[in-house]
Amino acid sequence: MGQMKRDIRLRGFSALSSLAIAWAWLDRQPAASRTEVVTLAAEVASRVLVEPASSRSAWPDVDRAATDGYAVRGADCDGASAYNPLMLVWLEPGVDQLSPGSVCPIAAGWTLPAGADAVLPFESAQRNDRRWLEVVAPVAPGTGINPRGRELRAGAGLLERGRRLRPQDLGCLSALGCKSVSVLCRPRVRIVVLGAKSGSDALTPMLLALLARDGAVAKPVFVDGADELKLEEALISSQAGEAELVLLAGRSGAGPDDVAALALQTAGGALALHGLALRPGGSAGLGTLPGPPGGVPVVLLPGEPLACLVAYDMLAARLVRRLAGIGLALPYPVATFELERKIASAIGLVEIVLVRLADGRAQPLSLEGGLAGSVRADGFVIVAEASEGHAASASVQVHLY
Amino acid sequence: MGQMKRDIRLRGFSALSSLAIAWAWLDRQPAASRTEVVTLAAEVASRVLVEPASSRSAWPDVDRAATDGYAVRGADCDGASAYNPLMLVWLEPGVDQLSPGSVCPIAAGWTLPAGADAVLPFESAQRNDRRWLEVVAPVAPGTGINPRGRELRAGAGLLERGRRLRPQDLGCLSALGCKSVSVLCRPRVRIVVLGAKSGSDALTPMLLALLARDGAVAKPVFVDGADELKLEEALISSQAGEAELVLLAGRSGAGPDDVAALALQTAGGALALHGLALRPGGSAGLGTLPGPPGGVPVVLLPGEPLACLVAYDMLAARLVRRLAGIGLALPYPVATFELERKIASAIGLVEIVLVRLADGRAQPLSLEGGLAGSVRADGFVIVAEASEGHAASASVQVHLY
Repeated sequence: MGQMKRDIRLRGFSALSSLAIAWAWLDRQPAASRTEVVTLAAEVASRVLVEPASSRSAWPDVDRAATDGYAVRGADCDGASAYNPLMLVWLEPGVDQLSPGSVCPIAAGWTLPAGADAVLPFESAQRNDRRWLEVVAPVAPGTGINPRGRELRAGAGLLERGRRLRPQDLGCLSALGCKSVSVLCRPRVRIVVLGAKSGSDALTPMLLALLARDGAVAKPVFVDGADELKLEEALISSQAGEAELVLLAGRSGAGPDDVAALALQTAGGALALHGLALRPGGSAGLGTLPGPPGGVPVVLLPGEPLACLVAYDMLAARLVRRLAGIGLALPYPVATFELERKIASAIGLVEIVLVRLADGRAQPLSLEGGLAGSVRADGFVIVAEASEGHAASASVQVHLY
Repeated sequence: MGQMKRDIRLRGFSALSSLAIAWAWLDRQPAASRTEVVTLAAEVASRVLVEPASSRSAWPDVDRAATDGYAVRGADCDGASAYNPLMLVWLEPGVDQLSPGSVCPIAAGWTLPAGADAVLPFESAQRNDRRWLEVVAPVAPGTGINPRGRELRAGAGLLERGRRLRPQDLGCLSALGCKSVSVLCRPRVRIVVLGAKSGSDALTPMLLALLARDGAVAKPVFVDGADELKLEEALISSQAGEAELVLLAGRSGAGPDDVAALALQTAGGALALHGLALRPGGSAGLGTLPGPPGGVPVVLLPGEPLACLVAYDMLAARLVRRLAGIGLALPYPVATFELERKIASAIGLVEIVLVRLADGRAQPLSLEGGLAGSVRADGFVIVAEASEGHAASASVQVHLY
């Protein structure tokens, strides 16, 4: 086994894989499948439905008033005007049956009394007497009515499988009597951060927030990279913890203490690719740990914090979001801006260029600012592998943080 | 007191207030002020900072390697090439001091040994001997170095007060040694839903999800609208519960059982305005319950679920988001689409028109679909008060759900 392990330390990457190859590998990993039944509550919004929802019953379930007013028979109001007021018999609110020539107050949402076919607005009548209502305007049958099944016919499809639930979806489901829904489980992600030489840990809180954004639940562990036993233990316990994805962050490069790739192999895992045509983030890698059929996917993330952020977004986020069932696209809004200065980029590398927006234009920032630069940035431009960059004043797509 | 209460039941609204007036009232309510100190964790992302954060120390704290490679003195490599390899003395990784003519492997993030001024890429050298490294390319001093303070100078401003924290912000704060941050408390909102005649409660789960979206924590209570005592109790307990906002949902109209406005006044509150030039959602209202100086703001929301959604978004969300410190704008992305059919709208009313996107065009939906219509819709168009609507093929701004 020993000599089969790939060790790039003090050598560097002999070849860089394209993002397209990395994405193809990520997209081959097993998709989301665990489901759970959850009761309708605030947290259900943005979860992903696993069964289509249709209306078990019509909605409204009976003919109801659509507005406040008076339940009437439209025919009883024919010809009414201020010059020709028509008198209708006043019935107290809540009657089940409206006999011809009578009227009763009704509120939006109430069941329409049998016999009524319209709701007359309050403004179209006046009450000068306890027993009579004076109608001063006609009303067409059907006006102000919300007939049975108008909003939803019984059995009509309401929500498709895979729908990311919105607040109004919860309202509709609840109105139809659903108390709970089947949704995809949040993917379980294990974060193993390999202690950085600098001591402070920028990666754990950032990765936790990114994973929460992408719908995952994460469990972090911080390991001193020099402690090989602890590291192997952390990787092996990831499998026992039923993680569906492991992020191994830090020490992914080719430096003398960059043990991540080796540790993965020592723990029985395999490295699928290591070294990406991506800047920053090029020392990222992909692999698997033994586990369920196909293994547990592992994404190696660089320890340099900006490179880690970029590699998370460009690689790990894609798989996390697929596991969560919420679409592969980056969760940043995209808008077009004019470049303030040119961007030069190496052909053969996807480059992430941080930009700041000022006066409606995008100002490229130096990568030297590191993670602090991404804090100051308003977003980033993705310069394609085949591109040498963009000229000043070119229109570019900015992914907005 | 009795005869001073405004009762619009069986009369309707004598005048409708414009949204501009409602917004001005909402914007006059006391702003967010409660703060709390929270430890850096996933949940901190999207919280709002109440103190500016600056770097207490420089970052990097010392000169560090920016890339993996060999720490060298640039001058020692002058003139090196494949035809003129230069031999440097090999030192094991981790030395503190690099004497002239020597080299040692280094990883990105490590402290640069004293004397070194560049990091030579692995590819620029080869090791044929245990004691010597053969350098085959020159390296300019400063290359591959992340000098002290380059990412952040000591004392440099990093995050402004009012910043909604992003994942990378948490990373930066953590790297700088922050373990916790002061953020605005989530606004506490009390939801009082007045039982609808139809029995099922569409409003509670929808409002809970909307409030969570806007950064609030909410406590719902469901009251049978006919039970005046329970309703008064619920309103009075809202104050005891230290709610910063009360949403009184349902029974806000002019029907015979529309007790919301009256109950607010019976509980000692005041109605500021009731009846809005908004469709749907026109029976919404604004008022206050007695409490802290200025009282506790109350938003009356219609019981018809679509009207409730619209009134929440157009009125309540504005105040909730201000209390949460996250900006007044609606949280929907906006994009321009061509209308497939014309939209007719009454002058003097702000109308919310649901639209479905098909073939890149926006298709207006009838409001008759109710909340189920908003489930089917991809977004909505806000037709201004002064507008009669939009012609077919006009470009409209669509707020995307």
